[in-house]
Amino acid sequence: MQTELSKTLGVEHAVFGFTPFPAVAAAISRAGGFGVLGAVRYTAPDDLKRDLDWIEAHVDGKPYGLDVVMPAKKVEGVTEADVEAMIPEGHRQFVRDTLAKYGVPELAEGEASGWRITGWMEQVARTQLDVAFDYPIRLLANALGSPPADVVDRAHDRDVLVAALAGSARHAVKHRDAGIDIVVAQGYEAGGHTGEIATMVLTPEVVDAVAPLPVLAAGGIGSGRQVAAALSLGAQGVWLGSMWLTVTEADLSSPAVTRKLLAAGSGDTVRSRALTGKPARQLRTEWTDAWDDATGPGTLPMPLQGLLVAEALTRIQKYEVEPLLGTPVGQIVGRMTSERSVQAVFDDLTRGFEQAVDRINRIAGRSGK
Amino acid sequence: MQTELSKTLGVEHAVFGFTPFPAVAAAISRAGGFGVLGAVRYTAPDDLKRDLDWIEAHVDGKPYGLDVVMPAKKVEGVTEADVEAMIPEGHRQFVRDTLAKYGVPELAEGEASGWRITGWMEQVARTQLDVAFDYPIRLLANALGSPPADVVDRAHDRDVLVAALAGSARHAVKHRDAGIDIVVAQGYEAGGHTGEIATMVLTPEVVDAVAPLPVLAAGGIGSGRQVAAALSLGAQGVWLGSMWLTVTEADLSSPAVTRKLLAAGSGDTVRSRALTGKPARQLRTEWTDAWDDATGPGTLPMPLQGLLVAEALTRIQKYEVEPLLGTPVGQIVGRMTSERSVQAVFDDLTRGFEQAVDRINRIAGRSGK
Repeated sequence: MQTELSKTLGVEHAVFGFTPFPAVAAAISRAGGFGVLGAVRYTAPDDLKRDLDWIEAHVDGKPYGLDVVMPAKKVEGVTEADVEAMIPEGHRQFVRDTLAKYGVPELAEGEASGWRITGWMEQVARTQLDVAFDYPIRLLANALGSPPADVVDRAHDRDVLVAALAGSARHAVKHRDAGIDIVVAQGYEAGGHTGEIATMVLTPEVVDAVAPLPVLAAGGIGSGRQVAAALSLGAQGVWLGSMWLTVTEADLSSPAVTRKLLAAGSGDTVRSRALTGKPARQLRTEWTDAWDDATGPGTLPMPLQGLLVAEALTRIQKYEVEPLLGTPVGQIVGRMTSERSVQAVFDDLTRGFEQAVDRINRIAGRSGK
Repeated sequence: MQTELSKTLGVEHAVFGFTPFPAVAAAISRAGGFGVLGAVRYTAPDDLKRDLDWIEAHVDGKPYGLDVVMPAKKVEGVTEADVEAMIPEGHRQFVRDTLAKYGVPELAEGEASGWRITGWMEQVARTQLDVAFDYPIRLLANALGSPPADVVDRAHDRDVLVAALAGSARHAVKHRDAGIDIVVAQGYEAGGHTGEIATMVLTPEVVDAVAPLPVLAAGGIGSGRQVAAALSLGAQGVWLGSMWLTVTEADLSSPAVTRKLLAAGSGDTVRSRALTGKPARQLRTEWTDAWDDATGPGTLPMPLQGLLVAEALTRIQKYEVEPLLGTPVGQIVGRMTSERSVQAVFDDLTRGFEQAVDRINRIAGRSGK
C-alpha cells in the first residue's frame, strides 16, 4: 500500500492513525503505518514530554507525528474566567438538572474536572510545539483550520510536513494557500468535528481542488475494502481515528465506554453540538438527546459549550452513568466489534485491501486471481 | 466493468441508471448500462404504456427495468380526500403565506397541480405493474420497502429480478427475507429518500449482511473513481440517479432547475422532510429553509406533507420562482457542471474507472501502467 506520500515519509502502508494514546501511536508506526499522537489533552508540557519520550523508546525508529488543536481565529487576552462568565445561568441549570435526573454523583473536593478549554487555546498549542519540535516528529497536523504562518515555517525548517483537516474543497484550498503540505479530507461519517459532505463525494473534490498536494481520506474507513475505496477516490492515504479506540493498546478511561463502542452499530452515532459547540460525531446518548431536544436550552457556541459541560462529562465518565456516557466516534463504530491489537487491525486492513484489489481487477477484466 | 450481476443481466457495464425520463433510460441501456424508468409520475396506465412503447422502439434490444413506489405498509380504503382532511389548517395557511411572500402566482382555473399522492399508492403501483409486465422488463425496483409477496412471485414467474432500496443493513436483511434479488444500498449522500449512514460505511455493511445477494451502491457516485470505490466496497454495481438530471436527453420541466443544478456545489443540498414528510435529499432552497425553520409549523408525516405541498411545488416550478425552486438531488450535484449526453457520461465513467484501477494497482505494487 504505497503512495508518493507513504514513500516520502518512509512508511510501508499509507495508513495514518490518529490516537490520544502513546502506546497506540507507537504500535501503529511499528505495524508499518504512521502514528499521530493527539495532543489536545496535554495541558502540562511535562506530560507531553513524558509521552513523547515513551514513544521514542517504543517506536523502533519508525516515523510518527503530532496532532494539535490550534484554532484558526486567535483570541487575544481572553482568559478561561472570561469565557466562563459568558455562560448563561439557564444553561448551567440545565446541566445541573440533567445530572440530577440521572443521579450523577459530585466529584470529590479538589478533584480535577478533566478536559479543560486550555488545550484548545493557541498559547497551549504553542507550548506543545515547543516540546514536540525537540523530537524527530515527521508530521504536524492541525484539527481546526490552518496553523499560523510562523508555525508552518517552523515545521518546514525542521523538515516536518504540515497537515490540516478540511470538510469542504473550499477549506482545503485555504489550507493549500496557507502553505499546508497535506490535506485530510474529513467526511460526514467521521468521528469528531465533521461537515455534511460524505467521504465518497468529499475525497475526489478535495483531491481535484488542491492537486498536486496529497490528500488523506478520513471518515468511514476501518476495513481493507474501505482503504481500497478511499485510494480509488484519489487519496494518497487514509486517516483512521475511531478504529483505534477499542484496540487492546488503548487506554480508555472507562471500560463502560469500550463496551458501548463494541455494542454500537453504524446508526448509533449522532452529529451533535453537545460536546464542543460545533457539530461533532459521537455516540448518541441520552446526554446528546437532551442537548439536541427542541424543548431544551440548546447548545452554546464553541468554546462556551465545551467549558460548560467539562465537569459534567468528567462526572459521567468517572461514575460510568451508562445512559449519558458517550465518546466521539465515527459511523465505522459498527465495525468495531471486538478488542484487537493494533497489529491485528493492520493485518485485517492489508489483507482486505489485497482482496479488494483482486476483486476490482476481476471486474475490470484484468489479470485478477 | 463486469460483475456477476451485469453478466446475469447481459449488460456491458455494471452501471444502473434511475431516471423518470424514457429517453434517458433508453440511452443508458444503449450506452451499455442498465436503464431503470421511474414510474411514480405515471398515474394513467396509458401514459406508462406510451413511454414503454417508446423505450422498446429506442433501446436497440438492450435490457431495461422499471422502478415503482409501493409502500411497505398497505393502507386499505383510504382515499385522497380522507388524507386531505387530515391536514391542519395552520399548515395550509403556512403554505399560502410562504407563496404570497414570494409573489407566486396561482394556477389557471382547472390547471392540474402536477404530482399527486396517487402515484404513491399501492393500487396505482399495481396498475403500473399490469402494464409493465406486458413488456420485457428485466428488473423491477421498489423505492419504499419490500414489495408484497405476490408481486415478487409475479416478477419471478416472468424472470424479472426484484430490487429494493435500503438505508441500513437491517432493512436490507428484511428485503432478503422477503425474497428480493438485489439490494440497492442507498447512502446518506444520495438524492431523494435517504437514511443517515454514508455510502462508505453502508455498502460493505449491506454486502456482508445479505451475502451472497448482489448489492448496488447508491449515493455519491458520478465519476469513474467513485464507481471503482463502490465496487471496491463489495458492490456488484452502482445505482446512479442524480447524474442523469442534467444530461441532454433529460426533459426537466424547468430550465431554471437545470441552471440551479449546474451551479450547485456538493454543500448545496439538504436532507429535509419538506418534500414528502420523510427525509429526502434535495437542493437547499428558501422553501426547504422555511419548512426546516424552528419558527415554522414543521413538516407533516408522509403522505400528508406531499399532498400539502403538491400544488405549491407545481406553481413554484411553473413560474420558476428561483429562491423556492428545488429538486431531489444528491451531493454529487457538485460534479454536475455541464449538460452532456448520456453517452458522454458513460465515456467519462468508464475512462475514469480504468484510470482508478491503474492507480490502485500501482499503489498495491501490481502491474499498473
